[in-house]
Amino acid sequence: VFEKVAVVGAGSWGTTVASIAARGARTVVWARRPALAAAIAESHQNPDYLPDVVLPDGLSATDSLAEAVREAQLVVMAVPSHGFRSVLEALAPHLSPGAAVLSLVKGLERETQLRMTEIVREVLPGNCTGVLSGPNLAREIVAGQPAATVVAMTDNAIAECVQQLLGVENLRVYTSPDVVGCEMAGATKNVLAIGAGISDGLGLGDSSRAALITRGLAELGRLVVAAGGRRLTIAGLAGVGDLVATCTSPLSRNRSVGVELGRGRSLEDVVGDMRMVAEGVKSAGPLLELSGTLGVEMPIAEQVAGVLRGEQEPSAMVSALMRRTAKPEFEPAPATGEWSQS
Amino acid sequence: VFEKVAVVGAGSWGTTVASIAARGARTVVWARRPALAAAIAESHQNPDYLPDVVLPDGLSATDSLAEAVREAQLVVMAVPSHGFRSVLEALAPHLSPGAAVLSLVKGLERETQLRMTEIVREVLPGNCTGVLSGPNLAREIVAGQPAATVVAMTDNAIAECVQQLLGVENLRVYTSPDVVGCEMAGATKNVLAIGAGISDGLGLGDSSRAALITRGLAELGRLVVAAGGRRLTIAGLAGVGDLVATCTSPLSRNRSVGVELGRGRSLEDVVGDMRMVAEGVKSAGPLLELSGTLGVEMPIAEQVAGVLRGEQEPSAMVSALMRRTAKPEFEPAPATGEWSQS
Repeated sequence: VFEKVAVVGAGSWGTTVASIAARGARTVVWARRPALAAAIAESHQNPDYLPDVVLPDGLSATDSLAEAVREAQLVVMAVPSHGFRSVLEALAPHLSPGAAVLSLVKGLERETQLRMTEIVREVLPGNCTGVLSGPNLAREIVAGQPAATVVAMTDNAIAECVQQLLGVENLRVYTSPDVVGCEMAGATKNVLAIGAGISDGLGLGDSSRAALITRGLAELGRLVVAAGGRRLTIAGLAGVGDLVATCTSPLSRNRSVGVELGRGRSLEDVVGDMRMVAEGVKSAGPLLELSGTLGVEMPIAEQVAGVLRGEQEPSAMVSALMRRTAKPEFEPAPATGEWSQS
Repeated sequence: VFEKVAVVGAGSWGTTVASIAARGARTVVWARRPALAAAIAESHQNPDYLPDVVLPDGLSATDSLAEAVREAQLVVMAVPSHGFRSVLEALAPHLSPGAAVLSLVKGLERETQLRMTEIVREVLPGNCTGVLSGPNLAREIVAGQPAATVVAMTDNAIAECVQQLLGVENLRVYTSPDVVGCEMAGATKNVLAIGAGISDGLGLGDSSRAALITRGLAELGRLVVAAGGRRLTIAGLAGVGDLVATCTSPLSRNRSVGVELGRGRSLEDVVGDMRMVAEGVKSAGPLLELSGTLGVEMPIAEQVAGVLRGEQEPSAMVSALMRRTAKPEFEPAPATGEWSQS
């Protein structure tokens, strides 16, 4: 059990997880901007990212990383992927020796294509780390709507402590041993959700979107397995569950970027309007570098990346995916006799 | 290749498939009601089920089963599951000996819990049979929106002929050898879609719905495998693809029934308003009888069936599913060491 929890990052999901943790442990949320930290600490509101939500009285806030993480047994990382390493390096000297580091971040580091828990291992090689992942839209969870999620940690006993801490009435928390699979699925689904959004923005309909999700799940699965994750994770909440939520919910930022691109707006214009980060926009490049290194074909992610680079018209994306020749849905793999998706 | 195709049933999906087939073969659609057959034949419209759509000139229509199926090499069955056997028995004497029978129907026979292709084998033991299944909303496909689907037949050469016939610019048709899996998934997803609709009707949000879809996919998968279908089918268009489309699209009839139930209307009231059949309403009972026989746990389908029988409040359905104790998402199966969803 955790006596003190630090949540590093005060975006909508970080604040939501902090407000759940505050019911079971002394919880401090760190906000980079002093004004936001003060608003959370004093008025128990996060006007920037969760307006109109009243946060628990027990939740404190600070703009000091040292103060946030000092004596915490659990540090929950909720900053965008591009700031993950630098924030982690800044907090590392103040961390208790045995503290566990839980990532909420679904992206890859641009320069290295590393997952967030791989960065944790580089910066803090001795600490237990892992991810929380699943179909969890912050605004819904903070409003008490029922949901389910998965926690995967390198030490399962600590995963069970996180399960106890965050498993409240409306949130069902499952444990999983598959850190790699859960994390890789999370980084991939944001890119695919941009594709689903493009299809919706073009007005192509729910049949198209479902086909994109299905074929997207196949490429997500290939990448998860090639990266060393478990096949079963693909079928779970952190796999198909999160993919479906992100590809279909109007509350998904990544899908929304795609919708606007599909309607003909430029990426610059769309991203300029957004207060929050759409991880898929940044992750598409490193994701394709990684899939190239691992030898995994990802036609949908490639099309999305082409659109994001401005090299592919959104309207050409779906037809490029449809134009392939007729064939069986699954091909028998010659060596093993097992079937793989073609 | 088929020279003549008969489509038996002039609902929205039957008419859509007929209008695609008419581009490549002489195609006749059978409508039970003479007035509807006359409307399709004369004005090239289906005012009852696809208003405002102009059907191809080449598509003819009749209310005579004998005339429809005579000399057809392919008979496409598009009547509701409760009329499937009697219509098939009525057309059997007029059928060409080698004709293949393709089912578009996603349900189970109430009294026998049989899949539609099992009924075909009973009535026409010597004929090739199979299913067309995937995330295909009739109104979208007939409007030319891009989509993908799967055809699974007992004879793969005939599946490839169907692929050729129906694989038009906007419809990508994959073949599969797994008749059982594709058909079982189709019968199950309609029941699960009622559950997703109930969640939406209660206003529980996209995170809840995605969790229901994920756990629903797990129980669909267990049933497919227990019935003799292939595990990989679950991950394909006829599995997760069709489930996602049906659980998320406002165009899905089964989801719509659930939405209205979730809003507090009675089943009688909801069904009384509908012109078309929601197969999941009829299939829930036989589905649970079958899963009981096969020893497969289906907690979501059970909750849906309870709501349909009027024994379970919709608002209690989701909390009943959430109330189970915290555990790992997947449990190692003691014997094999393989992981199965818990």
